Amino acid sequence: MGFFVKSMRNIKLTIAYDGTNYRGWQSQGGRHSNTVQQTIEEALKIIFLKKPRLIGSGRTDAGVHALAQTANFKIDNPIRPDKLKAALNGLLPKDIAILNVEDVASDFHARFDVLSKTYVYCILPLKSKTAFVSSWAWCIRHPLDLSMMRREANALLGRHDFRSFQASDRTKRHSVVALKRVEIKRVKDQTGFPFLRGLDLVTIELEASGFLRNMVRNIAGTLVDVGRGKFKKGELAKILKKRDRRSAGFCAPSCGLYLVDVAYEK
Amino acid sequence: MGFFVKSMRNIKLTIAYDGTNYRGWQSQGGRHSNTVQQTIEEALKIIFLKKPRLIGSGRTDAGVHALAQTANFKIDNPIRPDKLKAALNGLLPKDIAILNVEDVASDFHARFDVLSKTYVYCILPLKSKTAFVSSWAWCIRHPLDLSMMRREANALLGRHDFRSFQASDRTKRHSVVALKRVEIKRVKDQTGFPFLRGLDLVTIELEASGFLRNMVRNIAGTLVDVGRGKFKKGELAKILKKRDRRSAGFCAPSCGLYLVDVAYEK
Repeated sequence: MGFFVKSMRNIKLTIAYDGTNYRGWQSQGGRHSNTVQQTIEEALKIIFLKKPRLIGSGRTDAGVHALAQTANFKIDNPIRPDKLKAALNGLLPKDIAILNVEDVASDFHARFDVLSKTYVYCILPLKSKTAFVSSWAWCIRHPLDLSMMRREANALLGRHDFRSFQASDRTKRHSVVALKRVEIKRVKDQTGFPFLRGLDLVTIELEASGFLRNMVRNIAGTLVDVGRGKFKKGELAKILKKRDRRSAGFCAPSCGLYLVDVAYEK
Repeated sequence: MGFFVKSMRNIKLTIAYDGTNYRGWQSQGGRHSNTVQQTIEEALKIIFLKKPRLIGSGRTDAGVHALAQTANFKIDNPIRPDKLKAALNGLLPKDIAILNVEDVASDFHARFDVLSKTYVYCILPLKSKTAFVSSWAWCIRHPLDLSMMRREANALLGRHDFRSFQASDRTKRHSVVALKRVEIKRVKDQTGFPFLRGLDLVTIELEASGFLRNMVRNIAGTLVDVGRGKFKKGELAKILKKRDRRSAGFCAPSCGLYLVDVAYEK
């Protein structure tokens, strides 16, 4: 048994997915819950003839996208990482891509060992309907005052109790988070994609030691209210202090949210 | 009857659509052919209680996208253009957007009056699988030599018989086209969309008096062969002269093609 344990490999996956057609990352239990985790586990089962338990860095909600979700699993199989990557990408649907496969230390844990995570929330202020990208950004009809948003957002930096921005159905006892970075940018499109011409994307990038349920979407929803002039100066700091979900703005839709990086000590 | 004809309005629509989920622009006949034209005609019928015949500038194939498809129809109804636009956008699915509605001269014909059309073909050279945009560009695994592509593409400029690039199942008697512009660009992404970071799009933009069936896709497929070094210098000019579809490269997939502009005399 000791030998068996020694022969087990601990494999880390880096995964990108378009969350539009999935009910989030985490398996709900039940064969057809159509989650990203379950879809990848099914592919692993085809390769290994048994289904390893895939441990993700954390859940993402239905419709949320990921550029670099991380996960690990244990397996006693000698397959080369590059071959496993190729096989998985061949087996997985077009909206899930395995970006990297690597052997890691036997004690690596994709969730417990997270140092920090980075999310980007995308907002598309539009004058009229677009036939494209509506499932990849929150399309709004109002212009946004970014300088106002930036000034208010600074109040969130540092170590705070973010209960005001935590999903109301989840009151985690420990709701203190160290927010390392908040960046709000307007990016005039310069891509070659014809359907993006002239679009003017607003992104909110957040890096923190960890995130509470719906935290980024609640912050994004509140910052859009700020950008529309619904709150007066200094209001966001007050909302944070209140530690009451009802004081903040509403939860922005999941389609605009991207998990872009999960950092580990290395 | 003369009075009735006078009271008829001729209305021009400018339409954008993500063609991924449609069987092209043109109705195939049959209720459920799921074409863009039919989808818009159904929306017009809900507003006007009768279905006007929508005349498009031309067909686009299944999976082909449009940023500014044009169409016109006649109706005896006083609805304001801005209100009609709002009603249509409300009724139409999220992947079809009406960009403009305007009254035009009674003799305007969306197809016969076309002065020139512009198409863009998008190619995404990737090192590995992407979870995004695979239905909005032709994803290939090879690097492309753009200088080579540009030099060869110049042979296509001007008035030529493009039979070598015409759908093999359609041998139009008149296959002479005046190609006004060929531009091949590499656009390093600078958009804020996280899933586009680092992507390096290659676009082929063509403007012509008109296009033969599959002409842009056949040219794109051949130019990619050029960019991969499959043809030697001067080969494209030879292919053009041959006026034989079998001499050119294969037809590039529809997902990379965008109708971006339809010009009329004004």
